Amino acid sequence: METSTSRSLWHIEQTRFDPQSQRHWETVFTIGNGVFCTRGVFEEGYHGEERATFMHGLFDDVPLHFTELVNLPDALELEIFLAGERFSLEQGTLLEFQRHLDLRAGLLERQVRWRSPQGRTTLLHFQRFISLADPHLLLIRFSIHPLDYQGPIEIRAGLNGETDNLQFKHWEWQDQATSPQEAWLTCATRKTRLTVAMGARLYVESHAAIEREGWDVRNHPVLVARTQSSPEKPVRGEKIVYLYSSRETTDPTQAVQARLAQTPPPLWDQAWAAHAAAWQQEWEACDVIIEGDEEAQRAVRFSVFQLLIAAPRQDERVSIGAKTLSGYGYRGHVFWDTEIFMLPLFTYTRPEIARNLLSYRWHNLEGARRKARRNGYKGAQYPWESAATGDEVTPTWVPHFNDPTQLIRIWTGDIEIHISADVAYAIHQYWQATGDDTLMRERGAEIILDTARFWASRAEWNPSLERYEYTDVIGPDEYHDHVDNNAYTNYLARWHLQTALKILEWLKTHHPDVHGDLVRRLELTPEELSHWQKVIEHLYCPLDAQRGLIEQFEGYFQRKDVLMADLEPRNVSVQVLFGIEGVNQTQAIKQPDVLMLLYLLPDQFNDDVVKANYDYYTPRTDHTFGSSLGPSIQAIMACRVGRPLEAYEHFMRAARADLENVRGNAEDGIHGASAGGVWQAVVFGFAGLRVSEHGWTLKPALPPHWKRVAFKFMWRGQPIAVEVHSETPQHISHREAS
Amino acid sequence: METSTSRSLWHIEQTRFDPQSQRHWETVFTIGNGVFCTRGVFEEGYHGEERATFMHGLFDDVPLHFTELVNLPDALELEIFLAGERFSLEQGTLLEFQRHLDLRAGLLERQVRWRSPQGRTTLLHFQRFISLADPHLLLIRFSIHPLDYQGPIEIRAGLNGETDNLQFKHWEWQDQATSPQEAWLTCATRKTRLTVAMGARLYVESHAAIEREGWDVRNHPVLVARTQSSPEKPVRGEKIVYLYSSRETTDPTQAVQARLAQTPPPLWDQAWAAHAAAWQQEWEACDVIIEGDEEAQRAVRFSVFQLLIAAPRQDERVSIGAKTLSGYGYRGHVFWDTEIFMLPLFTYTRPEIARNLLSYRWHNLEGARRKARRNGYKGAQYPWESAATGDEVTPTWVPHFNDPTQLIRIWTGDIEIHISADVAYAIHQYWQATGDDTLMRERGAEIILDTARFWASRAEWNPSLERYEYTDVIGPDEYHDHVDNNAYTNYLARWHLQTALKILEWLKTHHPDVHGDLVRRLELTPEELSHWQKVIEHLYCPLDAQRGLIEQFEGYFQRKDVLMADLEPRNVSVQVLFGIEGVNQTQAIKQPDVLMLLYLLPDQFNDDVVKANYDYYTPRTDHTFGSSLGPSIQAIMACRVGRPLEAYEHFMRAARADLENVRGNAEDGIHGASAGGVWQAVVFGFAGLRVSEHGWTLKPALPPHWKRVAFKFMWRGQPIAVEVHSETPQHISHREAS
Repeated sequence: METSTSRSLWHIEQTRFDPQSQRHWETVFTIGNGVFCTRGVFEEGYHGEERATFMHGLFDDVPLHFTELVNLPDALELEIFLAGERFSLEQGTLLEFQRHLDLRAGLLERQVRWRSPQGRTTLLHFQRFISLADPHLLLIRFSIHPLDYQGPIEIRAGLNGETDNLQFKHWEWQDQATSPQEAWLTCATRKTRLTVAMGARLYVESHAAIEREGWDVRNHPVLVARTQSSPEKPVRGEKIVYLYSSRETTDPTQAVQARLAQTPPPLWDQAWAAHAAAWQQEWEACDVIIEGDEEAQRAVRFSVFQLLIAAPRQDERVSIGAKTLSGYGYRGHVFWDTEIFMLPLFTYTRPEIARNLLSYRWHNLEGARRKARRNGYKGAQYPWESAATGDEVTPTWVPHFNDPTQLIRIWTGDIEIHISADVAYAIHQYWQATGDDTLMRERGAEIILDTARFWASRAEWNPSLERYEYTDVIGPDEYHDHVDNNAYTNYLARWHLQTALKILEWLKTHHPDVHGDLVRRLELTPEELSHWQKVIEHLYCPLDAQRGLIEQFEGYFQRKDVLMADLEPRNVSVQVLFGIEGVNQTQAIKQPDVLMLLYLLPDQFNDDVVKANYDYYTPRTDHTFGSSLGPSIQAIMACRVGRPLEAYEHFMRAARADLENVRGNAEDGIHGASAGGVWQAVVFGFAGLRVSEHGWTLKPALPPHWKRVAFKFMWRGQPIAVEVHSETPQHISHREAS
Repeated sequence: METSTSRSLWHIEQTRFDPQSQRHWETVFTIGNGVFCTRGVFEEGYHGEERATFMHGLFDDVPLHFTELVNLPDALELEIFLAGERFSLEQGTLLEFQRHLDLRAGLLERQVRWRSPQGRTTLLHFQRFISLADPHLLLIRFSIHPLDYQGPIEIRAGLNGETDNLQFKHWEWQDQATSPQEAWLTCATRKTRLTVAMGARLYVESHAAIEREGWDVRNHPVLVARTQSSPEKPVRGEKIVYLYSSRETTDPTQAVQARLAQTPPPLWDQAWAAHAAAWQQEWEACDVIIEGDEEAQRAVRFSVFQLLIAAPRQDERVSIGAKTLSGYGYRGHVFWDTEIFMLPLFTYTRPEIARNLLSYRWHNLEGARRKARRNGYKGAQYPWESAATGDEVTPTWVPHFNDPTQLIRIWTGDIEIHISADVAYAIHQYWQATGDDTLMRERGAEIILDTARFWASRAEWNPSLERYEYTDVIGPDEYHDHVDNNAYTNYLARWHLQTALKILEWLKTHHPDVHGDLVRRLELTPEELSHWQKVIEHLYCPLDAQRGLIEQFEGYFQRKDVLMADLEPRNVSVQVLFGIEGVNQTQAIKQPDVLMLLYLLPDQFNDDVVKANYDYYTPRTDHTFGSSLGPSIQAIMACRVGRPLEAYEHFMRAARADLENVRGNAEDGIHGASAGGVWQAVVFGFAGLRVSEHGWTLKPALPPHWKRVAFKFMWRGQPIAVEVHSETPQHISHREAS
């Protein structure tokens, strides 16, 4: 498969420094290696920045939100003094500014021509990457070129343990050492007692002598180098940072010390080669080519990139939070966003990563069982928001945005129960795509069966209507809470129970020992299984046979009708417009709840049903300011009903969520579900890939200006290269990858 | 007046280093100058410490508690390296440890003989004071004496802007500079944008050469000095810190720079002389002598000391919080504790300070008016918890101590309304004691009148009983909330309205212009004043004529009777024992609510009433684990009913609140109300001072082992020296002070 080589199709560029938008760009310029990610802040630090580095699994307690990913000690810090003046864009004159992220290998690069307050002009160049080949390495390379003066240059490279999470401090100093050559720092989280050690070296290349100091300030050791520079004699150097946590090794300090002792700098060229090679492999598997639309091309690569840098490659006890590892939004908590929106990319292109993400749920089964028990149900009930243990960590109360004396009760952790089916769905999808019987046998089946028990015990018998129901729930559309018989929830629960029985049958046939063991361990009695069957047969799954409409929940059609078109123009969500209670009383929805169902269970609904529901729900959905999870699914369903132009509009809304900050909250972190949805929209929407247990098909619906779409996916261990061309409209070609 | 000169009667001593109790000792060893106070942490820093320095008026926003006093950047930091080994009691062997606070001038002193892990023994000596003569100066003096080795000594003196409040960070770095000679640092609070600048010098005296560095680490500049030492050649030095805030000067940085430029070190001797002289004056006015009881003697001095170091001398826009400036408890918020418990000490010995504290309420009248308006009342309603503006800052919700998913609603900010009468009472008491007509005319009258309006508009007419009532309130006894007609509240409200009318009359007679102006500004109509009169006449103020009993609130006598004696032994409060709801249903009380009323309005009740209520309520009061406000008042009332031995028991409970940590929460900060109550118990209880508009009288009731009690108080500008001797039991002598 050829990839487009044009530089601009791989580069995200910033050409203007604007302190007001810095937090947006920090999110966009996040880089990482699936172990840790760091927001795209500037080395020298600015007021109003949201400086943060997050590492998978490194949670600590916090009031109200229970637990959050901890902002690591700061390793990026690099202060530069040019003839005594501190380099800072807050002062002096910015003559040239250019920054870009090269998606091919996650290289963040900046070039600045800056005139100091005292009139000295310097050309500065920074490069930064977090090694994909070495999970413990962050490298910064810099060059300092005086253009019109000569004088002393001082470089200070610190490791700062005084970081906070939105003003809340998690770190407690443990130990450190500083010499003129190197520094290391070890800190521990206050409650969870996780340890992180960081070590740094500062390498400087100069024509003049270099004087070195180590400032051993408690919790903030700094390496200092001083030299002379001039227009003829620029200075170059590297800041090399090693990073280990107690989640990876018993003695992170020792690990860091060993690394510091090992490699004498410079390190860049060698480390870069390994890193770039690792990235080349990733893109071999994951790249998506869109010809004819540069913005879409960049956006889909950006989306894939953001998921790849957050994807755990060596760790099966962590998962990707709703905001990846790129911001404070949702505190690093994991939602259904992972299984339903992000996971397909990995399932179909990097199944090893998908296996890690699914194993995270298996390791957290005990937490899910505790949640079910506490709520009075059997089996395992996954938490709506999940962190290190699988226990529910959705905040129960948060301060009111307008009146801090009042608190808002958050109900999703109590009653947004579809998450358990979403996890089962993702496991089944993975199994179907990969044929990985081992995962299903050893982990997946246990999850699917024990969460099926939850569904069966949660089902309520309605004697007057002689049916099972799920009342008092929240569906994907969170504008409506405390509803009964949410269609998405009920259909998925039925599918889940059916699938559980099939899996049980499959185990019995192919792995009787595992079957016996599971039945024994989970104490699955014939009575219980026959109860499952009864729930399957009698669970209320609404469908208006005449109109083909599925009512989103009971009584939805009776609520006040609201068409989005009638509310234009607006620049707030319908929820803000009508209030939390107000919107609950209308048919306005935050995201396409029923369409989501039609997307996930395509075999259960014919085209007429899809069309009827598409036509009904689309004008009632808050596409612009509702859920960021909506647009990509809306795009896919628009393709399914044969409206690629409409699909393209929704698709670009998802594609621009972070790059263009269309929702105004990109500073809180990458919209991970939207990023995953962008990939799905291209693959399952425009290219029209459909995978079932019988194989896969393509039914493309490209926007007119797209010339070509190409990508790879894995089908039962085989890479398949897909090419969709539009020269001959709707022409489809596909072949085995070489 | 002679003062006891024995050293031990002025010293609070710690003879053992115990990491478990360090936070208790930090509170006890708090020192300050009425502008800022610093907890008695160790210079070198320890895990588990609660390192904090608080400055009056320096509030910043915080979740749930709205606003809190900000822990200043750390100025105490002093790290010492002895032949390369860091001095820390966490390692090596502690051969000798002695620390004491000299109350005469707030000198905190420590002597340590320490053997390092590598076996070197050093004698270290630290002294510290915060100048009472120079509100911007903190001084540390140290000496380092190697006992059995010679080698390099390194001293690092930092200014650390990375401090937090119980993990919450308020400071944002602004600016700094570091040279080998001096360092300064300027930080700003994130929301309130208050600025603090600190400057430091490190002075070292050595027989060997001294090498100096300045480590200019961002937000944590450090001054470093290295020299050689040996048994014959100890090293001495000083860390000199200047401190300015934007509340005092428009450019704190410039102010600090100017101070650094002014005085070359050493500074100790000169600064100490001025400081000690200032303290001598304070003790001239405020000392209380108790002969025959060393513990009581130390305790009363300690109590007075703790209030004096928190008392604003130059600032009339701040007041003393419930935990003074000594800990995080109640976040620096001001309660009725100040006016009713702490203020009498100042009113009677340092009226200039009392005037500042009362003026704080006047400056905050607008906040109190906002609170009244928001609640639908007229006039001014003081907040239950008060900070910088007079707006209510009581948290409405706090996390449940056992289950963090649940929140507890705090009602005191809504319905503990007696605070407005308490403020008026304190103003009237001050006026009566000092004869300061100016304060009453210019500020006091406005407060008393506008809060009287609140009481009149808050009174509810009960048509069936033909009386005014205050329903749904909390009285001083917080074990019972949402009660009707709390006796303390109703009696105080009636007194308040009566007093307001008297003040109005007084103004009309003596200051008709002020009267006219106030009536106009507050729009006091004759109708409104006659409504006040009607409320006075018809307000329900319970008193059982037969038994002489005052029912604490309506229906109290019907609640389940509980005698404390029947619950012994216990080591938790009755509230913890019975639960919040449970205790509400009993007659168990947190503090002597009715006795408090009898104490404050002695002219309204005869001795029989006092005795009847004392006998009824005393056995039902949780003296040991209820409110720390109770014991001192209980002691005074025990004296009034002629039981000095019983009084002594209650008194010592108050006296030991912080010194002996009898409530187990001294680490949160000094119990300021208890400290003020200790002074009141000696003066108004044991010595039996009674002051009215007609003059003052003494009716002593000393415990048998007390030989002599002596103190001074101010009566209408005249210092009065009181001596009570017990040789001839109940002999009273008093004379004008010379």
